[in-house]
Amino acid sequence: VTTRLPKVGTTIFTVMSALAQQHGAVNLGQGFPDFQGDPALVDAVAAAMRAGHNQYPPMPGLMSLREAVAGKIESLHGASYDPDREITITAGATQAILTAVLALVHPGDEVIVLEPCYDSYEPALTLAGATTVRVPLDPKTLHVDMARVAAALTPRTRAIMINTPHNPSGTVWNASERSQLRDLLRGTNVLVISDEVYEHMVFDGQPHISVCGDPELAARSLLISSFGKTFHVTGWKVGYVAAPAELMAEFRKVHQFNVFTVNTPMQQGLAQYLANPAPYLDLPDFYQAKRDLFRAGLAPTKFRLLPCEGTYFQCVDYSRISEMEDDAFCRWLTEEIGVAAIPLSAFHERPTDQRIIRFCFAKQEATLQAALTRLQGL
Amino acid sequence: VTTRLPKVGTTIFTVMSALAQQHGAVNLGQGFPDFQGDPALVDAVAAAMRAGHNQYPPMPGLMSLREAVAGKIESLHGASYDPDREITITAGATQAILTAVLALVHPGDEVIVLEPCYDSYEPALTLAGATTVRVPLDPKTLHVDMARVAAALTPRTRAIMINTPHNPSGTVWNASERSQLRDLLRGTNVLVISDEVYEHMVFDGQPHISVCGDPELAARSLLISSFGKTFHVTGWKVGYVAAPAELMAEFRKVHQFNVFTVNTPMQQGLAQYLANPAPYLDLPDFYQAKRDLFRAGLAPTKFRLLPCEGTYFQCVDYSRISEMEDDAFCRWLTEEIGVAAIPLSAFHERPTDQRIIRFCFAKQEATLQAALTRLQGL
Ligand SMILES: CSCCC(=O)C(=O)O
Ligand SMILES: CSCCC(=O)C(=O)O
Repeated sequence: VTTRLPKVGTTIFTVMSALAQQHGAVNLGQGFPDFQGDPALVDAVAAAMRAGHNQYPPMPGLMSLREAVAGKIESLHGASYDPDREITITAGATQAILTAVLALVHPGDEVIVLEPCYDSYEPALTLAGATTVRVPLDPKTLHVDMARVAAALTPRTRAIMINTPHNPSGTVWNASERSQLRDLLRGTNVLVISDEVYEHMVFDGQPHISVCGDPELAARSLLISSFGKTFHVTGWKVGYVAAPAELMAEFRKVHQFNVFTVNTPMQQGLAQYLANPAPYLDLPDFYQAKRDLFRAGLAPTKFRLLPCEGTYFQCVDYSRISEMEDDAFCRWLTEEIGVAAIPLSAFHERPTDQRIIRFCFAKQEATLQAALTRLQGL
Repeated sequence: VTTRLPKVGTTIFTVMSALAQQHGAVNLGQGFPDFQGDPALVDAVAAAMRAGHNQYPPMPGLMSLREAVAGKIESLHGASYDPDREITITAGATQAILTAVLALVHPGDEVIVLEPCYDSYEPALTLAGATTVRVPLDPKTLHVDMARVAAALTPRTRAIMINTPHNPSGTVWNASERSQLRDLLRGTNVLVISDEVYEHMVFDGQPHISVCGDPELAARSLLISSFGKTFHVTGWKVGYVAAPAELMAEFRKVHQFNVFTVNTPMQQGLAQYLANPAPYLDLPDFYQAKRDLFRAGLAPTKFRLLPCEGTYFQCVDYSRISEMEDDAFCRWLTEEIGVAAIPLSAFHERPTDQRIIRFCFAKQEATLQAALTRLQGL
């Protein structure tokens, strides 16, 4: 069979998780917590099943959950979305991204992504028949380089995909960057696909700068987020999209023929859980403590710590430790030192000459300590 | 925005369910049970969540569930699939269908579908850039007309999508039809995408004829099924695909960038539940009793009953009752008589001149009786 995705193998996350398991390594590679979500959330889902919420929900999701999402967005960003026509529940953020791309990007279109970027973006664009235009982040700051974005815009540019807090770099957008993007796109038809799955993990008292907080930008944007990330249940695969009605109508045309709809008891449980007073407000402190612990533990090593403004990822430069390429270094670290990480080149089209890897610190303190003990000698 | 799916509106299932609710009609439209699955299955999922199975499962699904699927296929059809490389758990059968099409069908390819057909097939093909070639079923028997399939094959034919038991007609393939398809495709590169979601609802002692039961055909086929349908939990959105390794490798490339993976606790619960001795063996009798009750109740009316060999759908010809087109008749039936159904034209590219609608009998006896009472006067 001829492949539709010639560049694609098995994702690095799967490969590294398998390698970690094989070698008994502490797995700080693939991004997922090793602790549990709130038992109240689990109870709400179990109760939903027992109460008989097990058949198809409405195609765009349970109205109670869409209302809860609209309420959350309104309270955090002052932006209003109509739950009836402007919010859709998805089987995770990855499904939302592919669906958005298939619905809104046409064969021959160009779409700008900011590199390094999550590994699903380009395959999604390839399946839509679009050309991926990679604009590197500023190599010093790992923030967006707006001049390079401006230079990449052409009449064929259909969309730009952004991601804040940014996986893998841990940088977050500031209000000025958002305004610059808004101004840059003014007068164009370029859409914004905004991956904000780490929205509740922004540190040091900074706000999360969402596309939805700028009305002009919001009018051309699809905002994508994830309950799995927010509530420590990455295996539940429930996320959402918020977008103006006209864009959402197209999104739903594809959504209904992709997954049609999303797990009913999970939706019901989440809707009920979100009726509690803002169960996500603790997250910045919760993860900041983990970040600080992990950074402090790495300080005595020869790793050079990159800034971590958000996400549950910490990038480090290992050039004082090894000259290996990052793939090889991650394998070595997993097999010989017993700690798995993700090479940054996984987020680039070509292997990079940077010596940077990513650790996930969404782990129990004991797990982080175990990893730090193994990393101490470096 | 320019649409990628110009022909697509909201699915008829959604439209009719909404209309039924609005008019307090008995909803025999959209196909879903109005009774519950086995409490033991619900308990198994709840236990899985409480035991902490809430993070990402492996990308192709939990191995225990893939093994259970392989065991089920082996015991029912004598076909063996390697759970490691040949089975993938999906977020329902619809997601499996879109993913299969995106992975294996290239822009410009032709794909044969047998009309009437499920409404997601053509949009999936459109998104892949393929041409949908509609071959009508034999209008008398609603079985496949192999001569017409043969005539539709061209060098550009990439795949044929089949569906047995067949939604909406309620017909099932027999062994001779399967052999004819095998012979017809011999020497071609045509793939078979086989939608077998109603596999456990085949009546009158007949076997389910799966593509996997013919090794030559299986070698070019993707077999798709659904736990939601089998275990009366359509809202859970868990299904699976079985296919030879080479095809599955391509399927997974797209799957990992569509949903990445599927709800962990649901998978865990299903795996445990499937360890019971074949919890699906009762289904034919269970649904046959409903079919017989519903058909007996309609016998005194002027509806003409079409055969129902499988599925949980009963098609009826209403031409002795009304000359309305089927859409209009379904609306009238919902609003005035208080019973919702699905017009057969929803499964056709163009409105048909046939006067046929589809009822879903996956309902409690009381629900079926309530519908029959309302239909008695006709
Ligand atoms: C979908 S598995 C990868 C999880 C993740 O988002 C990451 O590790 O970056
Ligand atoms: C996905 S909603 C439609 C359910 C169904 O398969 C049908 O009614 O035909």
